Amino acid sequence: MSEPTVGAASPAAVSADRRAGSRAPRPTLRSLGLPPGKLARLKRLLYSHGPGGGTLLVLPIDQGLEHGPADFFTNPDSLDPSYQYALARDGRFSAIALHIGLAEKYFHEYAGDVPLILKLNGKTAIPPDGQAFSALTGTVEDAVRLGADAVGYTVYVGSPAQDRDIRQLLDVRTEADRFGLPLIVWAYPRGDAVSKKGGRESLYAIDYAARVALELGADVVKVNYPVPSEKDAESPPPYNTLHLGHDAAFRKVVQSAGRALVLVSGGEKVSDPELLAKVRSSMDAGATGIIFGRNLWQRPREDALRLTRELHAIFREYAQAP
Amino acid sequence: MSEPTVGAASPAAVSADRRAGSRAPRPTLRSLGLPPGKLARLKRLLYSHGPGGGTLLVLPIDQGLEHGPADFFTNPDSLDPSYQYALARDGRFSAIALHIGLAEKYFHEYAGDVPLILKLNGKTAIPPDGQAFSALTGTVEDAVRLGADAVGYTVYVGSPAQDRDIRQLLDVRTEADRFGLPLIVWAYPRGDAVSKKGGRESLYAIDYAARVALELGADVVKVNYPVPSEKDAESPPPYNTLHLGHDAAFRKVVQSAGRALVLVSGGEKVSDPELLAKVRSSMDAGATGIIFGRNLWQRPREDALRLTRELHAIFREYAQAP
Amino acid sequence: MSEPTVGAASPAAVSADRRAGSRAPRPTLRSLGLPPGKLARLKRLLYSHGPGGGTLLVLPIDQGLEHGPADFFTNPDSLDPSYQYALARDGRFSAIALHIGLAEKYFHEYAGDVPLILKLNGKTAIPPDGQAFSALTGTVEDAVRLGADAVGYTVYVGSPAQDRDIRQLLDVRTEADRFGLPLIVWAYPRGDAVSKKGGRESLYAIDYAARVALELGADVVKVNYPVPSEKDAESPPPYNTLHLGHDAAFRKVVQSAGRALVLVSGGEKVSDPELLAKVRSSMDAGATGIIFGRNLWQRPREDALRLTRELHAIFREYAQAP
Amino acid sequence: MSEPTVGAASPAAVSADRRAGSRAPRPTLRSLGLPPGKLARLKRLLYSHGPGGGTLLVLPIDQGLEHGPADFFTNPDSLDPSYQYALARDGRFSAIALHIGLAEKYFHEYAGDVPLILKLNGKTAIPPDGQAFSALTGTVEDAVRLGADAVGYTVYVGSPAQDRDIRQLLDVRTEADRFGLPLIVWAYPRGDAVSKKGGRESLYAIDYAARVALELGADVVKVNYPVPSEKDAESPPPYNTLHLGHDAAFRKVVQSAGRALVLVSGGEKVSDPELLAKVRSSMDAGATGIIFGRNLWQRPREDALRLTRELHAIFREYAQAP
Amino acid sequence: MSEPTVGAASPAAVSADRRAGSRAPRPTLRSLGLPPGKLARLKRLLYSHGPGGGTLLVLPIDQGLEHGPADFFTNPDSLDPSYQYALARDGRFSAIALHIGLAEKYFHEYAGDVPLILKLNGKTAIPPDGQAFSALTGTVEDAVRLGADAVGYTVYVGSPAQDRDIRQLLDVRTEADRFGLPLIVWAYPRGDAVSKKGGRESLYAIDYAARVALELGADVVKVNYPVPSEKDAESPPPYNTLHLGHDAAFRKVVQSAGRALVLVSGGEKVSDPELLAKVRSSMDAGATGIIFGRNLWQRPREDALRLTRELHAIFREYAQAP
Repeated sequence: MSEPTVGAASPAAVSADRRAGSRAPRPTLRSLGLPPGKLARLKRLLYSHGPGGGTLLVLPIDQGLEHGPADFFTNPDSLDPSYQYALARDGRFSAIALHIGLAEKYFHEYAGDVPLILKLNGKTAIPPDGQAFSALTGTVEDAVRLGADAVGYTVYVGSPAQDRDIRQLLDVRTEADRFGLPLIVWAYPRGDAVSKKGGRESLYAIDYAARVALELGADVVKVNYPVPSEKDAESPPPYNTLHLGHDAAFRKVVQSAGRALVLVSGGEKVSDPELLAKVRSSMDAGATGIIFGRNLWQRPREDALRLTRELHAIFREYAQAP
Repeated sequence: MSEPTVGAASPAAVSADRRAGSRAPRPTLRSLGLPPGKLARLKRLLYSHGPGGGTLLVLPIDQGLEHGPADFFTNPDSLDPSYQYALARDGRFSAIALHIGLAEKYFHEYAGDVPLILKLNGKTAIPPDGQAFSALTGTVEDAVRLGADAVGYTVYVGSPAQDRDIRQLLDVRTEADRFGLPLIVWAYPRGDAVSKKGGRESLYAIDYAARVALELGADVVKVNYPVPSEKDAESPPPYNTLHLGHDAAFRKVVQSAGRALVLVSGGEKVSDPELLAKVRSSMDAGATGIIFGRNLWQRPREDALRLTRELHAIFREYAQAP
Repeated sequence: MSEPTVGAASPAAVSADRRAGSRAPRPTLRSLGLPPGKLARLKRLLYSHGPGGGTLLVLPIDQGLEHGPADFFTNPDSLDPSYQYALARDGRFSAIALHIGLAEKYFHEYAGDVPLILKLNGKTAIPPDGQAFSALTGTVEDAVRLGADAVGYTVYVGSPAQDRDIRQLLDVRTEADRFGLPLIVWAYPRGDAVSKKGGRESLYAIDYAARVALELGADVVKVNYPVPSEKDAESPPPYNTLHLGHDAAFRKVVQSAGRALVLVSGGEKVSDPELLAKVRSSMDAGATGIIFGRNLWQRPREDALRLTRELHAIFREYAQAP
Repeated sequence: MSEPTVGAASPAAVSADRRAGSRAPRPTLRSLGLPPGKLARLKRLLYSHGPGGGTLLVLPIDQGLEHGPADFFTNPDSLDPSYQYALARDGRFSAIALHIGLAEKYFHEYAGDVPLILKLNGKTAIPPDGQAFSALTGTVEDAVRLGADAVGYTVYVGSPAQDRDIRQLLDVRTEADRFGLPLIVWAYPRGDAVSKKGGRESLYAIDYAARVALELGADVVKVNYPVPSEKDAESPPPYNTLHLGHDAAFRKVVQSAGRALVLVSGGEKVSDPELLAKVRSSMDAGATGIIFGRNLWQRPREDALRLTRELHAIFREYAQAP
Repeated sequence: MSEPTVGAASPAAVSADRRAGSRAPRPTLRSLGLPPGKLARLKRLLYSHGPGGGTLLVLPIDQGLEHGPADFFTNPDSLDPSYQYALARDGRFSAIALHIGLAEKYFHEYAGDVPLILKLNGKTAIPPDGQAFSALTGTVEDAVRLGADAVGYTVYVGSPAQDRDIRQLLDVRTEADRFGLPLIVWAYPRGDAVSKKGGRESLYAIDYAARVALELGADVVKVNYPVPSEKDAESPPPYNTLHLGHDAAFRKVVQSAGRALVLVSGGEKVSDPELLAKVRSSMDAGATGIIFGRNLWQRPREDALRLTRELHAIFREYAQAP
């Protein structure tokens, strides 16, 4: 690889220019009471790879299953998973997150260079998702066997199928505890009941989802950024009358997640300034990092690497000791 | 912690001023035929922690899952689970009750100081609960691993999903028997059929729920205080014509629970006099203790500790030998 | 216990006055091809306890789960399970039948005096039972651990949920075979389809239920006494035109049960003459015994013991050698 | 037993008078590639018991479960399973087929005299069978323990519940393979979709069912004899325009069953000439034998034995070497 | 076998005439990161049997289960599975693919001559397939026991039952990984939601299905050839406006399958030129081979062998080294 790659931030390099004022603290690894296996692996993700300094920059590539190949049309190169793997390696991401098939068939070429988060459940977007539920596509043992450093699980908070989901998460969480693998929970409000209470982007729903992930045992929780809208009026009190701004709303979500580290998801592709503002707002609110897929790999490689360098620069500002 | 903490009642300190007249007896540990593990742990909860003297003062913090973060708005400090843990420790509660996530991430700082009741199942309040069912969020093995002194399970008595619930409870009960962990059953009437027969707060429903918990093997049963209303007329006979007062109705419930120790739940926040009256009425009826969450941690810390001291004082009046 | 208790019939004391003429034979233990564990335990129930002479007099106390505490209002003493245990002991019943909770919390005081039949599944009466199904509340291993002499299982014959029921019964039967515990099947017609074919008290339904229990492996089957009514016209042929009297109808049911010993259930409380006539009719028809709950424990203790003595006297007339 | 019993055909006694012309061949045991356990047991059924010469004459007695005791009214003696057992023994049947209860309670008196086929799943006729599914009533291990020579399983081909059925059959087939027990599949078209495509007696449905049994691993398949009717016009092509006669239609079914040996079921009681004609037609078409229940045990014993002798005589004509 | 059989292509014999220009590459075995068991078996299928040179020519015979015997009317010889086995052997196919019953009863005569792909799940065509789901008919252990070289699994992408399907596939994939058996996924869009989004033959659906198979861990994916139609307008963007030709559309599908080798299914019988054109188009697009059933065995044997020779000739053009 002759291209310039992005350097990982060493904690020592993190310095004085941090705006301490309005920043919310984020949990230190030390505070989490983690067993050794989880601690070792989280340290690897948070300090030895990616931007370091206790932050996370994750590249997800599960959209082929979740959305279908449509997401790859914008940047045809991205249809080949090698594109994302190489991007994750050359952009020095903390980890790449994907399902068993892309792990078994491609990871062997990047093992040791890019940490792996094995996503353990998923579904297609074809049937309606009023009863959303993601079945297991892999196991914690698969993750151990492949040398992954964490596992990912999507829980659809509020779905009528939540009983099966909570139970399935229990099984995954128990195995993750057994093998010492950090558990990253994609906490997504979903389903008919959510739609009637303000929708999946409401603060009500996202705030609730973050807390559910914490209570169910997530080590890290991936949440969406809440989007205030008129539909918030349909949320239960006090959410229906809160009227928080974007930043305050997200800060609330991070607080609800407690000692679960927070990853912000990127969602659909937006402009660079919007994206970077979202990152700063998230980190200021106490998030530990971001998990951006389409906003990165839907760009041409050079553009994506340039943006990644900018993200590294921002993350350096938020470095903290373990 | 420099704040004054509440002292645990020693049985010896419990004295002559007990009003014996109208008091219903409560089961002694000796009468329960418990295996050694359950006996050891229940003695710890009933005599070595909290008010002691065979009583229970439990602080639950599962509302983040069951109701969402909305419950924490009244007292923003309460959003951080450390608040409740510290309250349970400094207020000398018999135990704190919560789900796996809050146990794994926070309990390590309080282990040895606050006994833990690991709540093993739950659900969110987002979907309608006509078919209420709480899936497992943790296991009895988790409880053993974490050093918990009891496990909690919610059974929705009367729900159309009762078959899955009874079966799931069997699995939990069997494991709890195997490991000698006391089983505390949250016995809640719920579901469409309950609504048609007087509702979840009717004596019919709560009385039935208490008995179900006993028959299914609860060591301790958590019940709500029945609320007489016009809807009682829709209950099956003889409940539709009983017209018992609050105290008599609750006494009935305690009798139906037989040798399952009774915990009264607090429900929504009420005024101090109402709360204390409810406690005395419950203990007079033969309850073993209370499990009050929002009525305590929705208050500022000093206020909560003051009220806790008053509760300790009441509990001392009801102390009995094992 | 200073009260006079009822003596068990010894086979030797069973004598000449038996009306042999119209009596249907009942299966001998010898004919059943039982493995040693089942044989030993059934002999204990049929010959060493209760009226003896190969008969069964069982006291069930599962109504708190199946009907709710409402059944205990008639005789408030009966709300405390100790009442039924003492009645079973002092009335020399063959066994008491109940769920795990009442076994774990109370049986230790009566172990060795009253044989235990652990009922292994149940449900509440709260939801409608068009799809009736009773989930497991206990296991055969529980029964072994507690020293029970048999297990009980309710199958809802004809329920739309029959597939789950048959399968669950398989699991119980397999374990009962493994541990040598006699299997007593509560064979109850139930569900929407039964209602359309003459109802749960029709000969059609009860006759079918008895046979199903036999074919599925019951050692003993508990049936209700069929009640001829106009609804029989809705039963499939030939039942819709049979018009058998009570005695002949029940005799038919006993024959359909084949080598499964038949227990007659008591149902709601009736007058003494009605009750005793039902017992004689049942025994004449080839039943092995009765399982009467409300008809006994809804009476005051002395009244119940007096009636129990009368039942013993009748049973002595039907004694037979193993 | 002083009554004359029917002698088993020895292959040597099978002779020259076989009409070879129009007869379809039937699979030899040698061609089936069977593992030793299956081979030993099938040889016992096909050559050492019953008519021998590679044929099967099976007496089923599962109607008490499948239809209820109504089937026993025609011949009241038949209500007692001993009747069928004695008939199977004295009529020298190849085997008797029944559920666990009738095996555990009665087979011990006939073990060694009558081979046993343990039927492993069943259901009652009470609920409508648009979603027909038969749950397990016994296990392959039960069959091994009881000394059975084969197991029976009903698959409802075309039922909307076919996914559960196919899966359950997998479990049974796997165990049967493990223990070397021949698997006899009752292949019955059933359910709403079948009704709309010509019905359960159509060639379309029965032909499909026979093939499904073959593909799913049946060693022997029990099929009904197709009944041409106007409803065939609703079957998918080419069945809707085939218009085969009875004999040709059945021959087609036997061919579709491939190397699964074919048993023809008897269905409702018909006249002797009809019955014998059906047997000859079946054997000419390549069937291995018949499984007739009601047509035999709904007759008085002497009549049934007489007919059985006639069946033996026919079967002798179709003997073949292994 | 005196008939001329088709010779397998040796890589050395594969030569210069390959049109390299428009051909899409296909994955080499080396690139797949396969464990030894999978590698050994795939090499056997791709190089030691069939046309060789890294191609696959598979003969499926699961239509008896999936469609019923109707498919065998065109060529009555094909009703006997021996027909397909002999065709696979004499036509030197890479493998034959079928269910457990046809494997256990017939494969012993062809073992060592024709590699076996054991198809592990299936269903009948009788019920409507809006909720399509194929239950397991066999296990990976069956495949190991029988000496199969791969297993096949049908996933109905987009079916409302996808959660059960994905989970079931997980179980199969896990076992296949454990035993080192290559996993061939039949990736079929199916179900009500697919019908509303362009249908099962749309590029949208097939493209999505190919990717799902890759992400879920398929080693080989069997797809249908997309058929452009007016219904594509109902597909989600960008598919609703793509308007790709046949060749370009299929090339897209192969790319979406990534490192899962692609097999093209034959579907209904078409003319020879159409068939051969489809094969060339598929191989040009990067497919690894074809799985044609009806197009081959619905022909008379000589005709089928002649066509097979033509296919071998084409495949030789596409040989590549491992």
